[in-house]
Amino acid sequence: MSHQHPDDDTRGRLKVRRIAIDTYHENVAFLNRHCALYRAEGFQALSKVEIQANGTRIYAVLNIVDDDAIVSPDELGLTEQAFEQLGMENGNLVCVAHTAPPHSMDLVRRKIRGERLALTDFREIIHDITDNRYSKMEMAAFLVATVQSGLDREETLSLTRAMTETGERIQWHEPLVADKHCIGGIPGNRTTMLVVPIVAAHGLLIPKTSSRAITSPAGTSDTMSVLARVDLSPEEMHQVVAETHACLVWGGKARLAPADDILISVERPLGIDSEGQMIASILSKKLAAGATHLLLDIPVGPTAKVRHMNQALRLRKLFEYIGDRLGIHLEVVISDGCQPIGRGIGPALEARDVMQVLENNPDAPDDLRQKSLYLAGRILEFDPDVRGGQGFHLARDILESGRALKKMREIIEAQGAASPIPPSAPLTFEIVSAHSGYVTAIDNYQLAHIARLAGAPMDLNAGVDLLKKLGDEVEKGEPLYRIQAEFPSDFNFARELAEKDNGYRVGEKKEISHRYLEI
Amino acid sequence: MSHQHPDDDTRGRLKVRRIAIDTYHENVAFLNRHCALYRAEGFQALSKVEIQANGTRIYAVLNIVDDDAIVSPDELGLTEQAFEQLGMENGNLVCVAHTAPPHSMDLVRRKIRGERLALTDFREIIHDITDNRYSKMEMAAFLVATVQSGLDREETLSLTRAMTETGERIQWHEPLVADKHCIGGIPGNRTTMLVVPIVAAHGLLIPKTSSRAITSPAGTSDTMSVLARVDLSPEEMHQVVAETHACLVWGGKARLAPADDILISVERPLGIDSEGQMIASILSKKLAAGATHLLLDIPVGPTAKVRHMNQALRLRKLFEYIGDRLGIHLEVVISDGCQPIGRGIGPALEARDVMQVLENNPDAPDDLRQKSLYLAGRILEFDPDVRGGQGFHLARDILESGRALKKMREIIEAQGAASPIPPSAPLTFEIVSAHSGYVTAIDNYQLAHIARLAGAPMDLNAGVDLLKKLGDEVEKGEPLYRIQAEFPSDFNFARELAEKDNGYRVGEKKEISHRYLEI
Repeated sequence: MSHQHPDDDTRGRLKVRRIAIDTYHENVAFLNRHCALYRAEGFQALSKVEIQANGTRIYAVLNIVDDDAIVSPDELGLTEQAFEQLGMENGNLVCVAHTAPPHSMDLVRRKIRGERLALTDFREIIHDITDNRYSKMEMAAFLVATVQSGLDREETLSLTRAMTETGERIQWHEPLVADKHCIGGIPGNRTTMLVVPIVAAHGLLIPKTSSRAITSPAGTSDTMSVLARVDLSPEEMHQVVAETHACLVWGGKARLAPADDILISVERPLGIDSEGQMIASILSKKLAAGATHLLLDIPVGPTAKVRHMNQALRLRKLFEYIGDRLGIHLEVVISDGCQPIGRGIGPALEARDVMQVLENNPDAPDDLRQKSLYLAGRILEFDPDVRGGQGFHLARDILESGRALKKMREIIEAQGAASPIPPSAPLTFEIVSAHSGYVTAIDNYQLAHIARLAGAPMDLNAGVDLLKKLGDEVEKGEPLYRIQAEFPSDFNFARELAEKDNGYRVGEKKEISHRYLEI
Repeated sequence: MSHQHPDDDTRGRLKVRRIAIDTYHENVAFLNRHCALYRAEGFQALSKVEIQANGTRIYAVLNIVDDDAIVSPDELGLTEQAFEQLGMENGNLVCVAHTAPPHSMDLVRRKIRGERLALTDFREIIHDITDNRYSKMEMAAFLVATVQSGLDREETLSLTRAMTETGERIQWHEPLVADKHCIGGIPGNRTTMLVVPIVAAHGLLIPKTSSRAITSPAGTSDTMSVLARVDLSPEEMHQVVAETHACLVWGGKARLAPADDILISVERPLGIDSEGQMIASILSKKLAAGATHLLLDIPVGPTAKVRHMNQALRLRKLFEYIGDRLGIHLEVVISDGCQPIGRGIGPALEARDVMQVLENNPDAPDDLRQKSLYLAGRILEFDPDVRGGQGFHLARDILESGRALKKMREIIEAQGAASPIPPSAPLTFEIVSAHSGYVTAIDNYQLAHIARLAGAPMDLNAGVDLLKKLGDEVEKGEPLYRIQAEFPSDFNFARELAEKDNGYRVGEKKEISHRYLEI
């Protein structure tokens, strides 16, 4: 194999080429094994490289390619995210050089050894992560280090601060900007889409940015997308808020606390969970979104994310401590997480439940209505003019008078109404009870999993429609819920899983899970 | 975008396609975003998938592709390692399905939470790693977990056992199979190539498998490759050992403790170091190679891998404890690691030093000679017929009589002599002292780095030739060492680095680093 060597004036310069591979928040560069630079620079697979062009500098992990059709020896391939960050055209010359691992990995290694990190340390780490200088492995190392020796209160505060400082921060120029967040894990829990119009109808500012579902069958953005456009630019979002005092949009376009998105892309597949990371993730997003007042909902239940009351209480203290230090007015509600909220699980089904409540339809699911009124009431009490304890009644008045529905219609119109979707999914199947008795438990995870297999959230109409809830009496053969799907294979997967374990326990009345929480 | 859906009989089946990308010990699968399965199965980038064909099952991490030229919607791309593991032809049909993260990740998460793991736990983890069920992220999580809460003695023993059990184990059918290992970090430290012929000339079996350089300018395999073929198959290695009682080969073809190679591919770029991992890595390789008696060299010095005597002593105890439990006779030598050993740094230069010692050349570097005789002597004393304390003299007799040189020639001939390389690299440059005085310190890392930039180990002739060692007197302008390179850009990189920091400290006689160790 001949070893071609670059002239000095093109030393380290290669033609950049877009490689349409999605490596999910990791920059990967591809170099041909016969590239002169590969040998001259002593590159190896998994080396970190620095790519420069026109004053822009990006970082990537190297993969070595043995196929000229993917990248030829005078080219450097970049995955889509990296290519976009560099902002060059195919064929432009770029400089490639070795780069040392980010300096802040020294700090990560200190954390691994069990040392405490300071605010400046977290700032360096988060800065390098946001700059895509960390490989997935390095992020995994950081995350495991923070889980294992743990983040104490001060470290969690520092991490939150560091994550808030990177990326944009929205300015609303209002003294009270309300927001809400739920720790998650409860299917069908679409209170946000009721709280926002109620609070906005009262006159408070509540510009809500949400994520899309990652592991759940629907996020607020997915459900809202059934009714309106949600992928608004920051400018469009400002316009909607100026018109309606509210919005219900996807937060992905706003570049809020971008380090959070990157870290989540590693945390999720690893299945590791750190309270410190979770708190920093939630609060940094809210602060970046410009919230001044935040209501946090922590559902507790045997199949919720938070399973024990003492864990919920500890989380509350931590949230309060950090919220106070960062100057956000924060209140925590611990709620019942024993079963799904409402009836529908999946974007269109949940949107139906939400609209039924807004329309004061007598068939509207009462648990969704009550919980939403309670949460909206607590947010209304952030208003100095609302007397403590009066929020719930005020919220109910706003809902019953139709003002909440009117506000929701304004928001939908301002964001741009979605084109109507066909009324229901063509394939349905009812899961029935194997014997008579009472519904004594419902497994949130199993129901979410079945709804996902049915196609939610990608197929808006897919999901699960609950016909029985906790405490309901059922006869043998009576349907517990209905699976809806659009595609036969999705339908079969969901049905097979539900037939193996339908997620319901039917037993004696005395076995019904004790709901120790009011909402 | 139309959503094509597979018929039930081809559900989950795609045409496999080799993608010539080297992802270095990670299986990656590529799926087109418009592939029917992508949506039907709810795949996401970084999902883990299981690929089955003809009874073979492999695991891979998913990347999503938006270019039909890389993989079309009815294809599944596999990186080279994954493609080879599956053992199919391009275009063969394979089944693809979601796979849960390996069950043993639960054990890793337990370790992250600070729990102790048992032998059965380590067996499960190492089994899954060897099966390529772990992503790089998951391996990083395992490694960090073992670094952070640490592995106690029993856990290190369990990990070593688990790593030894996977892969092959060579049987030599001899009661005494000698081996040596050095913890590393000292450039030019090629004692193995002297110890092996001396020990074999005495009649002991010493079949030495070595690694290639990963981060150093030369490993034993790289240096030996200047003189002989080193990439022998297991059968060829057995033949060489039968003929000569020894070998000096690259261990990569023997599939010894394969989990170790996989873990190192993550450990190295992360730059994390765990004593437990290191001990398990070294001992599992030696046990798999069939060694019964092992001499371990731990160099200590301010720029060596082990920097303090107390760390070396702790490591010695740990090695002894685990060696005893695993039934390998193990002795530890703590040696001086204050500076490089010999003169040359780089494969050809180090091979020159080795041959000078074997040939009893009066110019041969004395430190390399003395250290090699000492280590060989300690191994000779494993022989029950050699009286304690007589090993050194015996080794010296074997060397001075020319029997070691004769043995080395036999080994080279049996492995197959390498074709001679041109006598020296065309580009050389001398780094001179900026002032007069004594060499008071030499930075191992800096010299290794300069030698690597010059092209070592890939260009056999490249490297650094030391002209002054610790304690030597130098005049202002007198050369300290010579850089050798083959390619102008390598040469310039190495020279620039050396001119910035040449790695030498020249000062007063009293400042010379105290060498508290005899060898």
